[in-house]
Amino acid sequence: MDEEKIIEFINNNIKIKNKDVILGPGDDTAVLKYDATNYLLLTTDSVVENVHFKRDHATLYQIGKKAMAVNLSDISAMGGTPLYALVSVGFPDGTKNIVAPLLRGMEKMSSLYNFDIVGGNISKAPVLFIDVTMAGIVEKKYLKLRSGACVGDNIYVTGKLGGTILKKHLNIVPRIKESRILIKRVNVTSMMDISDGLSTDLTRLAKASKTGFRLWLDKVPTSADAIKMSSSKKEAIAHALNDGEDYELLFTVPSSCKKDVPAKIGNTIVTCVGVITEERKFEGVYQDEVVKIEPSGFSHF
Amino acid sequence: MDEEKIIEFINNNIKIKNKDVILGPGDDTAVLKYDATNYLLLTTDSVVENVHFKRDHATLYQIGKKAMAVNLSDISAMGGTPLYALVSVGFPDGTKNIVAPLLRGMEKMSSLYNFDIVGGNISKAPVLFIDVTMAGIVEKKYLKLRSGACVGDNIYVTGKLGGTILKKHLNIVPRIKESRILIKRVNVTSMMDISDGLSTDLTRLAKASKTGFRLWLDKVPTSADAIKMSSSKKEAIAHALNDGEDYELLFTVPSSCKKDVPAKIGNTIVTCVGVITEERKFEGVYQDEVVKIEPSGFSHF
Repeated sequence: MDEEKIIEFINNNIKIKNKDVILGPGDDTAVLKYDATNYLLLTTDSVVENVHFKRDHATLYQIGKKAMAVNLSDISAMGGTPLYALVSVGFPDGTKNIVAPLLRGMEKMSSLYNFDIVGGNISKAPVLFIDVTMAGIVEKKYLKLRSGACVGDNIYVTGKLGGTILKKHLNIVPRIKESRILIKRVNVTSMMDISDGLSTDLTRLAKASKTGFRLWLDKVPTSADAIKMSSSKKEAIAHALNDGEDYELLFTVPSSCKKDVPAKIGNTIVTCVGVITEERKFEGVYQDEVVKIEPSGFSHF
Repeated sequence: MDEEKIIEFINNNIKIKNKDVILGPGDDTAVLKYDATNYLLLTTDSVVENVHFKRDHATLYQIGKKAMAVNLSDISAMGGTPLYALVSVGFPDGTKNIVAPLLRGMEKMSSLYNFDIVGGNISKAPVLFIDVTMAGIVEKKYLKLRSGACVGDNIYVTGKLGGTILKKHLNIVPRIKESRILIKRVNVTSMMDISDGLSTDLTRLAKASKTGFRLWLDKVPTSADAIKMSSSKKEAIAHALNDGEDYELLFTVPSSCKKDVPAKIGNTIVTCVGVITEERKFEGVYQDEVVKIEPSGFSHF
């Protein structure tokens, strides 16, 4: 069973009973009743030793930051603002020197993104794992789902993609600020974060929106590290399409609103990379040739 | 560093910034702003293979139930009602037959206790771990903390303690119903759940309340399994004091309100086991002899 199938199986077998659940599993966060103006967002994500990091390649401070960043990215994907985090840590034996630097990394993110660590749990475990649950809020009018893309919408990404394994995966900058600016200024129809590679996540967005897409492959912004890892432009694009852990925003905007989309937000570039299509095909165009896009991003299984 | 020290270190190094945090780490759940009448409760707890269960001793259905039950117990400890759960699962290879029975156990608890599973995450991991975050609410007027015990209050426990390793740890009945009945009928001054053994958790409650306690050891209700595991009454009491995973309620009531405390709620007995003292000593009385009570319950380290 691959990751996608497991998730599908789980989502099909969960029965939502409570009317306060606006949106259950299937998007970047759950969406729940909160107050008159806002929804509550809840999401969880874990980093596991030897799966998401190796301790001889990453400091504990970086791992603590990363555990928070991947969850902040989910909150940003909904248009939200982070509020609270809970942290569950599995510690292998000999924990003495783990706690302090890990916590320092988490607290760093907590002050950068202005949320509170309000609870947690520690347990023995054969390898280090950190599971974070993040709560946030979003104004009802600004909530963005991955299912809102419409035929003819343009597809955008923030930042440059690919090659994150070299450096960026340990220094993720969740796009909270960019997301908040975008949803206030632009008619964003759908949004999610790119965690498992553009090819995989855009396929998810198109499926959720019951559409297809056409990517302009030579427009896909390739990071310096994706280029460094590649011997051709085509190879760099493949990295940008398929490497995991970009944690950039992927969103759609009606083509009539193209002029509203800023080319840059602070230092973060925003690039139009394709168009949403009616026919449910997942395609790319590279030098006038149409190619099929397979979800080839990072899968855990 | 032992578990208590790690938790203390973490709690001392977290700075709460947001005024909507009514209570951060240190009690059974975090307590957060919600609406005019209620607080939001958030808690997280994990079960890890070979630490909290072994797969040849427990079915996956039981493990799924347990992962939910330990979190429900935390919600009950605050006087709350569960609303939502998020589930983060670490899967070892060969997951094919794990997902369905695990989910069935979780869904069983979800329908028994009327909460929704609204999100989750799956990841590869060397052993099976399940980290659940539970959200609940409690009316502001009914919120119960572990820090509220007053000198002279009587100490109560629900159910019978000890010997859970034989059976009960795989069939935990979170005391949601009992907790709701108690807080509405009785002037409960402090409450928590017994997860790491009465000796450990009562010490935590007394420390949080800046008091001591005196336990009447021959009044401590010993489970049939604690008796089965013991060759003397004293040994059975030691099991009741120190075995982990009871998931019963521990609470205090002013002695003037003794008459309000029911002897039984449904099939769950309620027993007065001691008194809160001004002198910060943690003591027990057994056959007229005063003994020191050490926190000897389950520690993860």
